[in-house]
Amino acid sequence: MNVSRRTILKTGLVAGAAAATPGMAQGVVQTERWGVHELVFEGPRHGNPVVDVELAAVFKGAGRTIRVPGFYDGDGTYRIRFSPPEIGDWNWETESSASELARQRGSFACVAPSPGNHGPVRVSADGYHFTYADGTPFRQIGTTCYAWALQSDAKCAQTLATLKTAPFNKMRMLVTPNVAAVATDPFARTGRGPRDWDPARFDPAYFRRYEDRLIKLGQLGIEADVILFHPYDEKRGYNDMKRADDERYVRYCAARWGAYRHVWWSMANEYDIVKTKTVADWDHLFQVLVGADPHDRLRSIHNLNIYYDHRKPWITHASVQNGAAVLDDNRAAIHREFTLKPVIFDEVVYEGNSTQRWGNLTGEQMVERFWWGLIGGTYVGHSETYDPAQNADTSWLGQGGTLKGTSAPRLAFLKKIMEEGPVPGIDPIQHLWDYHLGGQPNAYYLKYFGAAAPTEWRVRLHSRKDAPKHRFRADIVDTWNMTVTPVPGEFAMQQIGDYDMGDPARPMIALPGKPWIAVRMVKI
Amino acid sequence: MNVSRRTILKTGLVAGAAAATPGMAQGVVQTERWGVHELVFEGPRHGNPVVDVELAAVFKGAGRTIRVPGFYDGDGTYRIRFSPPEIGDWNWETESSASELARQRGSFACVAPSPGNHGPVRVSADGYHFTYADGTPFRQIGTTCYAWALQSDAKCAQTLATLKTAPFNKMRMLVTPNVAAVATDPFARTGRGPRDWDPARFDPAYFRRYEDRLIKLGQLGIEADVILFHPYDEKRGYNDMKRADDERYVRYCAARWGAYRHVWWSMANEYDIVKTKTVADWDHLFQVLVGADPHDRLRSIHNLNIYYDHRKPWITHASVQNGAAVLDDNRAAIHREFTLKPVIFDEVVYEGNSTQRWGNLTGEQMVERFWWGLIGGTYVGHSETYDPAQNADTSWLGQGGTLKGTSAPRLAFLKKIMEEGPVPGIDPIQHLWDYHLGGQPNAYYLKYFGAAAPTEWRVRLHSRKDAPKHRFRADIVDTWNMTVTPVPGEFAMQQIGDYDMGDPARPMIALPGKPWIAVRMVKI
Repeated sequence: MNVSRRTILKTGLVAGAAAATPGMAQGVVQTERWGVHELVFEGPRHGNPVVDVELAAVFKGAGRTIRVPGFYDGDGTYRIRFSPPEIGDWNWETESSASELARQRGSFACVAPSPGNHGPVRVSADGYHFTYADGTPFRQIGTTCYAWALQSDAKCAQTLATLKTAPFNKMRMLVTPNVAAVATDPFARTGRGPRDWDPARFDPAYFRRYEDRLIKLGQLGIEADVILFHPYDEKRGYNDMKRADDERYVRYCAARWGAYRHVWWSMANEYDIVKTKTVADWDHLFQVLVGADPHDRLRSIHNLNIYYDHRKPWITHASVQNGAAVLDDNRAAIHREFTLKPVIFDEVVYEGNSTQRWGNLTGEQMVERFWWGLIGGTYVGHSETYDPAQNADTSWLGQGGTLKGTSAPRLAFLKKIMEEGPVPGIDPIQHLWDYHLGGQPNAYYLKYFGAAAPTEWRVRLHSRKDAPKHRFRADIVDTWNMTVTPVPGEFAMQQIGDYDMGDPARPMIALPGKPWIAVRMVKI
Repeated sequence: MNVSRRTILKTGLVAGAAAATPGMAQGVVQTERWGVHELVFEGPRHGNPVVDVELAAVFKGAGRTIRVPGFYDGDGTYRIRFSPPEIGDWNWETESSASELARQRGSFACVAPSPGNHGPVRVSADGYHFTYADGTPFRQIGTTCYAWALQSDAKCAQTLATLKTAPFNKMRMLVTPNVAAVATDPFARTGRGPRDWDPARFDPAYFRRYEDRLIKLGQLGIEADVILFHPYDEKRGYNDMKRADDERYVRYCAARWGAYRHVWWSMANEYDIVKTKTVADWDHLFQVLVGADPHDRLRSIHNLNIYYDHRKPWITHASVQNGAAVLDDNRAAIHREFTLKPVIFDEVVYEGNSTQRWGNLTGEQMVERFWWGLIGGTYVGHSETYDPAQNADTSWLGQGGTLKGTSAPRLAFLKKIMEEGPVPGIDPIQHLWDYHLGGQPNAYYLKYFGAAAPTEWRVRLHSRKDAPKHRFRADIVDTWNMTVTPVPGEFAMQQIGDYDMGDPARPMIALPGKPWIAVRMVKI
């Protein structure tokens, strides 16, 4: 990802004195579509600007008016970050409770995105998949490194180097630490104890550091699923603040990062074991987030035991923890029935050597779960808990670093299969009738056998009587050894009974009798 | 069920002239708890009393005040039906837009229920099962005969005779016909065409006839899941009325039948293919129903393709159609995660010889689905589509009559197993970890093997380290041949790892190598 930043430096004291910036072309300030147009102002330093000063800018362009809140970045600096959704001329004017920040005006030209900038990921028009704003399908292959961005510079660089050659295009990451970290203080400290900090004073250095990692992730083309709250820090209490403090924190994160097109919001990890918050609290914080994020980034919340009600309108997609749902495509598909939204199984047990049952999958088992999820029309998340000391905290899951497992190359292979598949994605086909097929009816079918090792398969694809019958080609896909072996010849489909089609002349496909095999059948 | 009816005949013209009724004992009118206390009045006949006359009674007793709407039953007769929820003295006073029906007063004594009257079925305190008001668990074994109550008297009698010896304790039944029926006109006819009827004028004879069948069902101890709307009568259009007509119809059914303690409300069958109503319409009709039913009977709605949002507060339990969910206990259990309510799979494909795929299960397959549902902590519904002409319309499903299938005795056996099990019911045990166990942790475990025919099973039951370990006995349950074979001796449970328990001296149980086997393990 190419994070396009165009900075206009203004001082609040000298209105209109726009400094020349790298974004100027023939005197016109330019920002690419879906890039970040950042306004920087100097303003009041006295008191607590986070609490005392309100600041926003109203952007007008392409027939739209978008009000974007700003944030205080310390040392008298205020910023407003806007990601223009449309090409064309945009004008802006600030609003502020501080007179020197109010009624500032400017304009810029939003130009075509540079190569590789596909815009933010949205829910696809059919409602169950993801698509970049430019129409490119987003095929989710997620991973989780909760506190990677809070580690040392060297460790962060190592994680980024790992990600550069890994298949993952989405990262789940906490804002505040859950495991040992270098960066531990998002708020200004007031003493030496773990709870000695002021929830009304953000430490800009902490957020700037996080943001640096966030942007580097985006430059690798990886979506950042930013997790705002979690239940793992009873020591410091960042997740146990008062409502007004939670609201301020959510607004700050939204103002600070919402303009980055690769940001997604995960309201919480394992929300249901954050002892200090009820479902009503979470609902309220979603309202705050929706109001604070004019960029309308994707929003979800992740559970331990109790599913949140994903049909609530502020939820864009389901983020689910379930250790067994993706052992069966049909279990996965049921989640779509209930949510009527895209489903990502963000936690399905991790690959690793943990003594805990939530971190002990083999690579084969990890990959199998991705495949069942795919056949069920859903998406799956990876992580790794391999550690010499069997300590998940210091593994990829906790801190990032390097991958030790065997699943990642197979997930890259899976992603390629997905990219060769239908747009916007693979749906379950007749799962209410247990076909165990994914795809798009009459065009593309994917059959997966998991750990079973059949030596043949009777080709019986769902098709209604009134659907035209086509010729299909077949591939045998070895999902572990990463091979695609075409089945010679074609299958001339004919209707079989009321619901199925097959080629009577070629009823069976021979299979290699190995586990982790899939068959792909595509209309010629 | 003993439907207790106590009739007080009053004429609106002679206030207070209560006639002697069978419910009088030493001059005190008595109605048993959860019975029906019915007030009958004479009132206006002119105009359209259904539309013109409002009538209700306010009942006060046991510290409660309950306002119960009445209904017009034709020929100048008005009725108010109230089911007293508590023992003690109740006073009542009417309210009406018609002066001769207003300010009538009376009282009665609510006495202890007669044997067999357990009160209405409610959701159990834990939220996932059903319990009668007196605390007796209700173990749902449902069936469906959509239009049985609309058939000839002889056919209705035959259905009731069948039900008398069948295991079913819940019947799903439509108010208006979906198949050939004797009773076809719930509304007053205005001409000879199928759509020539007046939605503002109920035909009392139709509803009295239905009510007669309804009461007889209750007398057999069978709950009546009364389905108010359905998508199968485009010819007559009873399900395509205007909103005001729908509201009047819902209020009429609620006033007429809500006092019967065995009535449940199913807002619609396959709601999502009723073309003339949207989800917002259904939501609205639920609001109407909640407001019209002071008895607060159970409420659900049944889908074809699109699950209704069962977390909505007016839904008491999920009523689900899914042809494959109960092929796997875990798929079933996922439904509990989403709904946080009791789940009944009311349609899971029927036992029968239909040429349609929704009506072609063997008896074995029908029974298997009940068992998987049970292990998943849910409930299942039966019906039969056996017919010589393979016509589901004229089978048990459509019209009632006699059972031809082989599942019913096995469902009776299953019910006995359920009755011997934990209260209020069987929960899935660690389904997120794919244990395939139902029961209550550390007390009762049920393992089911479905069509598999294992010859042994390694006893590995979920138990936390901190849970005391007990001795257990085991039974091998042949769910098809209906036998329970005790395994000799005991199992002295010890912790195994972090999550499990077993008896190291007896790790395995030998099994008969037949399909449809379960193992039951109960704490001694």
